[in-house]
This record gives sequence, C-alpha cells and structure tokens, in this order.
Amino acid sequence: MSIQNFQLILYRFISTGRLTKVSIVFNRFIIILIMLNIFAFALETEPSLSQFLPFLAVFEYASLVIFTIEYFLRLFVCRQDPVFKGRFGYIRYFFSFHALIDLLALLPFYIPFIMHLDFRALRVFRLLRLLQLFKLEKYMMASSRLSKSFSNRKEELFITAFLSMMILLILSIVMYYVEGSVQPEKFSSVSASLWWAISTLTTIGYGDIYPMTGLGRFISGIVAMMGIGLIMLPTSIFGASLVEHISHKDTPKDS
Amino acid sequence: MSIQNFQLILYRFISTGRLTKVSIVFNRFIIILIMLNIFAFALETEPSLSQFLPFLAVFEYASLVIFTIEYFLRLFVCRQDPVFKGRFGYIRYFFSFHALIDLLALLPFYIPFIMHLDFRALRVFRLLRLLQLFKLEKYMMASSRLSKSFSNRKEELFITAFLSMMILLILSIVMYYVEGSVQPEKFSSVSASLWWAISTLTTIGYGDIYPMTGLGRFISGIVAMMGIGLIMLPTSIFGASLVEHISHKDTPKDS
Amino acid sequence: MSIQNFQLILYRFISTGRLTKVSIVFNRFIIILIMLNIFAFALETEPSLSQFLPFLAVFEYASLVIFTIEYFLRLFVCRQDPVFKGRFGYIRYFFSFHALIDLLALLPFYIPFIMHLDFRALRVFRLLRLLQLFKLEKYMMASSRLSKSFSNRKEELFITAFLSMMILLILSIVMYYVEGSVQPEKFSSVSASLWWAISTLTTIGYGDIYPMTGLGRFISGIVAMMGIGLIMLPTSIFGASLVEHISHKDTPKDS
Amino acid sequence: MSIQNFQLILYRFISTGRLTKVSIVFNRFIIILIMLNIFAFALETEPSLSQFLPFLAVFEYASLVIFTIEYFLRLFVCRQDPVFKGRFGYIRYFFSFHALIDLLALLPFYIPFIMHLDFRALRVFRLLRLLQLFKLEKYMMASSRLSKSFSNRKEELFITAFLSMMILLILSIVMYYVEGSVQPEKFSSVSASLWWAISTLTTIGYGDIYPMTGLGRFISGIVAMMGIGLIMLPTSIFGASLVEHISHKDTPKDS
Repeated sequence: MSIQNFQLILYRFISTGRLTKVSIVFNRFIIILIMLNIFAFALETEPSLSQFLPFLAVFEYASLVIFTIEYFLRLFVCRQDPVFKGRFGYIRYFFSFHALIDLLALLPFYIPFIMHLDFRALRVFRLLRLLQLFKLEKYMMASSRLSKSFSNRKEELFITAFLSMMILLILSIVMYYVEGSVQPEKFSSVSASLWWAISTLTTIGYGDIYPMTGLGRFISGIVAMMGIGLIMLPTSIFGASLVEHISHKDTPKDS
Repeated sequence: MSIQNFQLILYRFISTGRLTKVSIVFNRFIIILIMLNIFAFALETEPSLSQFLPFLAVFEYASLVIFTIEYFLRLFVCRQDPVFKGRFGYIRYFFSFHALIDLLALLPFYIPFIMHLDFRALRVFRLLRLLQLFKLEKYMMASSRLSKSFSNRKEELFITAFLSMMILLILSIVMYYVEGSVQPEKFSSVSASLWWAISTLTTIGYGDIYPMTGLGRFISGIVAMMGIGLIMLPTSIFGASLVEHISHKDTPKDS
Repeated sequence: MSIQNFQLILYRFISTGRLTKVSIVFNRFIIILIMLNIFAFALETEPSLSQFLPFLAVFEYASLVIFTIEYFLRLFVCRQDPVFKGRFGYIRYFFSFHALIDLLALLPFYIPFIMHLDFRALRVFRLLRLLQLFKLEKYMMASSRLSKSFSNRKEELFITAFLSMMILLILSIVMYYVEGSVQPEKFSSVSASLWWAISTLTTIGYGDIYPMTGLGRFISGIVAMMGIGLIMLPTSIFGASLVEHISHKDTPKDS
Repeated sequence: MSIQNFQLILYRFISTGRLTKVSIVFNRFIIILIMLNIFAFALETEPSLSQFLPFLAVFEYASLVIFTIEYFLRLFVCRQDPVFKGRFGYIRYFFSFHALIDLLALLPFYIPFIMHLDFRALRVFRLLRLLQLFKLEKYMMASSRLSKSFSNRKEELFITAFLSMMILLILSIVMYYVEGSVQPEKFSSVSASLWWAISTLTTIGYGDIYPMTGLGRFISGIVAMMGIGLIMLPTSIFGASLVEHISHKDTPKDS
C-alpha cells in the first residue's frame, strides 16, 4: 500500500465531510472531547473542587496528546481534500483558517515548555483554547434552515441593529448632560452613560446606575420601550421569514 | 356480581382514560384535591397564618386518606387496563412510572409512623408530594396542538439551546479572567461567573453581580443581546411552526 | 313635545351606541373628561405642584357636576334602550353593571357630605373613581380584530398561564427549603419565595431577593428560562392566530 | 457656462435623491462624517482620553467647515429641486424642515463667536448637533418594507400603547396609596409611583424602588405580566402584518 493510498483511506476516516461512518464517529468524538475540555477548564477554577485538580490535569494532558495527533493527521492527509490538491497544498492548508485555529488552540500548552513565561501571560494564552468551539459551530450550523432564514433578512436585521446603536449613542449623550449634573460620579462620561443605556435597553437593570431626575427617568422609559422594540422587530422579521420559507417549501415551484 | 365484574365497573369509574362521566368527575376531583394540597402546603409556611395550622393539618390528613384509598383502588382495578392485562399485571402496575409517583407522594406521610426520623429529614420527604403534579400535567397536556408544534421543531429548539449553553460557558470563562482581577470576591470562579451570565442572558439583572471593567461591560452587552436572541429565535421557530400547523389543517391533503 | 319624545331625542344624543354625530361627540367628551380627571388625580399628589391644588379642585368639582348630570340623564332616557324597555326598566338599569360603576365612581364625592368620615377612609373611596376607565375600555375595545384573535386561542393561553402558575408555586416551595436555610430572613415563607419567583419569572430582578446557594441559582436559571417561554408561547400562539385570521379574511369562503 | 447650468450640475452632484453616482458617494460621505462627529462628541467626555482633545477639536473644526460649505451649496442649488422651483424658492427652502435642522446643527459652533455666552449655555446648544441624525434616518428608512408593515397596523399598535399607558397610570395611583403608607419616601407621589410602574412594566427592575407589602407585590406581578403582554401584542401584530405583506407580494394580484 503506497503512502497515497494510506492518505486516502485515512482521509476518509477523519474528514469532516461525513464521508464514512468512521469519520462521523471520529469527528463526534473530537467534538465531545473539545466540550469536555471546556468543562474541565471551568471546573479547575472552582475552589471547592481543588482536590480534583490532579485528575483534571491528567485528563487535559491526555486530550492534548489526542488533539496533537489529530492536528498532524489532518495535516498529513490534507492533500486528499480537493481544495488543497494543487501546488503548495500543505502550506495552504497550514495557513487555512481551520488549521490555524487548531494550531492556536494547541500552542498555549507547548509554549511554556519552549519559552519561560510567567503565570499571567500563560492565562491569556489558555483562553485561545476556546477557539476550538468555532470548529464545533461549523459542524452544527451547516446548512440549517435557521441560517438561511437569517441571511434572507440580513439587511433588515442589520439596519434595525445599526439604527438602534446610533439612537442609543445619542440618548447616552443626552443622558450624560441630564443626569451628569445630579450624579457626576455615576454618569461621569458618555461611555458610563452608554453602559446605563445598554443595561436599560436590554432591560437588565443591574441597579448599579439609574436615573434620578424626572427627565432622566422619562428618557429611561423611552430607552426601555425601544428595548421592547428590539425584541419585537427581529422576532417579527425572522418569524415572518421562517413562515415564508416553510410555505415556499410546501408549494410546487411552478405555481 | 363477581370480583371481575366489580373491578370492571370500578375501572370505568376511576380510569383516567375519560371512559364515563363518573370517571371524568372523579379525576377532576382528584386533580383539584392535589392542587388544594399544594396550596395548603404553601400556606403552612406563612408565619401570619399559624393559627390556621390545625385546620390545614385536618385537611391534609383527610386528603391523605382519600389519596391512600385512591392508590389502592387503582391497584385493585389495574388489570382491567389493557396494558396490565397479562401476567404479573399487579407487579408491572406497581412498578409503572405512574404508580411509583403516586406511592412516592404518599410515603412521606407514613414513614414517620414506621421509622423514627428527625424533623429535617421529614422536610425533604415532604417535597416528594409535589410529584403529584406530574399526574396533573399528564391530564392537561394530552394531545394538544402546542405539544405537537413543539415536537415538530424539537431539533432546532435543542440546537439553539445547546449552542447558547456552550457560548454562555465560554463567555463565563472569559468573564472570569476579565472581571476576576478587579472583583475577585464576586467573580471568584467560573461557576460564579456563570451565575452572572445566566442573570444577564435572561435579562434578570438582580444586581448582586455585575461587570465593572470596560471589556466586562462590553461582554455583558453581547450576552444581553444574545438574551434578546434567546427570546427571538424560539418565538420565531415555534410561531412559524404553529402557522404551518394551522394552514395544513385548513387545506385538503391532496392539494 | 311629550316626555316620551324628549327622552327619545335625548337618548339619540347621549347613547353610547354611536347613533348620531352628537352622541359620538358627547361620548368622546365624557371619555376625555374621565382621562383628565385621572391625570388631575395624579397631579394632586405631586408635592412640587401643591400651589395648583385649588385649580385642580375647581376642575374636579366642575367635572363632578358634569358626571352627575350625565348619570341622571342616562337614567332618565334608559327606557329608550331596547334592553331596558320592558317592566322595571329603571330599576334594571340602576342595577346594571354599567350604571353601578357610574354610581360607584360618583359616590366617593358625595359620601363625605352625608356622613362624617375621617380622611383615611375617604382615600379608599376615591380609588373607586378609577372604575370610570372600565367605560373607556368598553368604548375602545369593541369589536377589534385583536380581541377576536384572543378569544380564538383563549383555551391555549389559559392552559399555558395555569400550568405556569402551578409550576411557579412548586418551585417557590422548593426554593423555600433550598434558600430558607441560608437566608431565613429573605425566604421566610412560601409567599416570600413566590415574590422571588414572580420577580425572576418576569425577569424584573429588583435585587431585593435573590438566591445564594448553588442549587438556588440553578432553580433561578430554570425559572428565568420559563420566563422566556412565558414570552415565547403566547407570542407564538397569538401571532399564529392573527396570521390565520388575516389569511381567512383574504380568501373567499367557498375555496 | 451660465449660473443656471452650474447650479444644475452641482444639484446632480449633491442631491439626496440619488441621481448620479457622485451624489450617492457625496451623501454617504456626509452621513459618515455626521456619525464620526457624534463619536467624537462622545469621546470628548472620556476623562481617560483627555490627551486626544486637541485632535478631536481639529477634527470638529474641519467637519464644521465641510458642513458649512455643504449648507451653502444646498442653499445655492435648491431651486433646481422641483419642490422649490417657483417663487420665493430660496426662502421656502431656508424655512423647510430639512434646512432648518441643518442650520440648527451648525449654529451652536458660530454663536459663541458672535455672542458672549457662558459655558453652561453652550453645552445645551451643542446637543442640537445631534439633530443631524434625523437626516441620517431619512436616508436609511426610505421606502423599507418595515415602515410599510408598521403603518399598516398603526392603529392597533396605537390603541395597545394608549390603553397600556392609561392602565399604567391607574396602577401607579393604586400603588401610591398601597405602598405610600409603608414607604412614604419612595412612593412619595404618583409620578414616583409611575417611575416604579415603568421600571416594572419594561421588566428593567433597577432595584431603587420596589414594593414591600403583599398587595403591592401582587400588583407588581400584574404589571410585569402586562409587560410580557407589551412584548407579545406588538410582536404578534407586527409579525402577522409582515407575513401578510410577504404572501401578498408572492401571489398575483388578480387571484
């Protein structure tokens, strides 16, 4: 069996294109392993679970080995993929978005072995591991009805979002002048005022910043009503698009 | 009249299958009694109503007698039900989900008579009584249009929920590093950060935990916007499914 | 001109059935006067507007005179209404829901003249004036498309509401045991726990009561998700009903 | 080349009617400049960015020159617009809504040069600059499907909004009496009570004002449920209108 043949068989086994039953099982295993790593990452920070830290570390190192093998396997077989068939296939795959994310998710583990970094910097690198989820989304969102309905109404959803942003900014500026004179330590700048606007528009209302003047409360009411609109408009647009989508699928195309 | 006949008549009177007018009335009475017991349970905890405690106790014991009789009656006639007709009918009914819930809801009353348990443990057992509501739901949700529309779009609703969960977890990890350095006592672990994420995503915003850094507030805004999406997506999916359901019912099947 | 004729002409001028242009103008005037009275009622409580109190009092007494005249006019002409034509017409009108509300809204002004009541009791009676708005709603909601769509789906909306209530009550009981041991002064009874549940379900989150245990926060998340469902379900049901309504109106009935 | 011809060519280059490619580019440039000015305005208030103030000032003065030139250019060519062709064309354009906003947005920069005003007054004038966004909206909202669907259901949306307002006011009055006796410093007047009502209806719940009595909490729950309705009703109405709009566009008009 030549290397070419071996690459082809392996490609069929690990490709994300769902070619064979083996590839589906393999990719599901990788996805579950990514998710378990994220959970392990979260559990490590629990003070009450500190006695399990050694077990989590073992699990992380085992996963690291698997992800490293996976990375080199994918690099090894990449030329079987039609996209990377031609010249410089390995180099083009290496610099592809997918492969770079895989590499970035692996690097934070290996860098400490090579360079001498302090703990603080390491923390930042570790967050890169979360990029692994982009792969996850790629697997799941593929060709769903939802994403089609979304791209159908992309323009309207974008205009709604953009206008909301601009009106929000303007109301923040107004609020900065209205409330700033009464609560200068809270509404200290337009960005602080914008934080109030976001917290009000989304109807969170943490309670760390709120208006005290009559005019400020009136504007607050308007922003909150806009927040209702922020729920209403995309729901209506998106829902109507889904209804259209469903009814088009039902009726024959020539009618 | 043989026992067989007596069982059949009784089965027709108490079956939840709505066979006769008597069975409908009987089951409605049981449902109302279950609900009244839950209300009584809630009223017992009111300090201002402590003088009514004896009356509530009398009501509870009376209900207990009725529920006990009901339990044994259902056990007595269960073999008239086609499902439990064959061999080991009584045993299979005894271990059916429905019968086990009924038993679990009764046990907490009788256990103190048999064993000697302290007050604390009793409390926990009492909560089992709430399982009675599962029966209630069974009665009401049966074959409604809503549940059909829901199961139609189960997959899409599940993917939406699952992806939201994963993104939420990742944002919690990010937030743990971003806010943890400024408010280490609030964002003390990823689970504490997750509590912030849930409180923000659902736009509750209790105000016990909120971001203070610029980046943290920016992430907060993103999570809150996702919360808007969390309302938007299922509403659209479910609403569109209902519209489809209604229009299908209206048009003849051959068109 | 006989009294009979005079009653008929007057009935045409003040009837709420929109018989003539005069009656439409007259009833609009009454509606606006009711609303202005509610505004005046609100303004009276403003400490910063206390110097306008005499003017507001004059306006209230003037309105009182008009409402009193209106009440007796309607009583005078009521027998022209087909509903109150037969025997005991005046008495049946006097005890009709509409006339009783009118009377209840007037009484609080006259009672202090007749009886000697202290200020506290008067306050309570004044609130009855707000019942005038029921008339307002009657005028506006009549035969709208919205109310039809609502009554179409009344059953589903009711079941959704009822089940939510029951699950809310049960979660409040659970929360009372879970959080009550950590925060006994906050979750002091099931009713206090229910206040938390309402504040969480509707995603208000005032911040006066919130969970502190891990399990309590988990339940909080579930309740908040149910709150999302509380927005989702009726929006979907009602929206789908409106779509159905519109499409039925468009298509001919024989198709 | 006569002035007439020069005016026509210039009109084609700067008209907001999207006549030529040059006019589209020119108007996009103006829109982006307006938005950048609003951002600059917001950045000026940031204490941490005070070292960039000179740069922002330079940018503002440069924009001012451009906006001034734009204003006089539009005034110069206005008679080429069919609307302002006849007699008093310049005067009618000068007093048109569009031109007045442009002038009001420019004035705050020039007034300090002419008159001697203190800093406080200047602040208020600066806010007028935000009126520039009205132009922005005019550009973007023109003839969209959304605005049509909105005007289709304007009446229903208005009635929903108006009734909500009235019920809100009444509940505020009730709340003023219910909570005012327990928390007189919080629910000090109906307007303070109305602030609570808005904060509850929109489910913000800042936590600065909340009910403490049982009845007050019950009313709070009702208001919050109304808030759910406030999201539900317009979403349903608007969504149904969009669905109708889309399906009408699809089917031929004679069917």
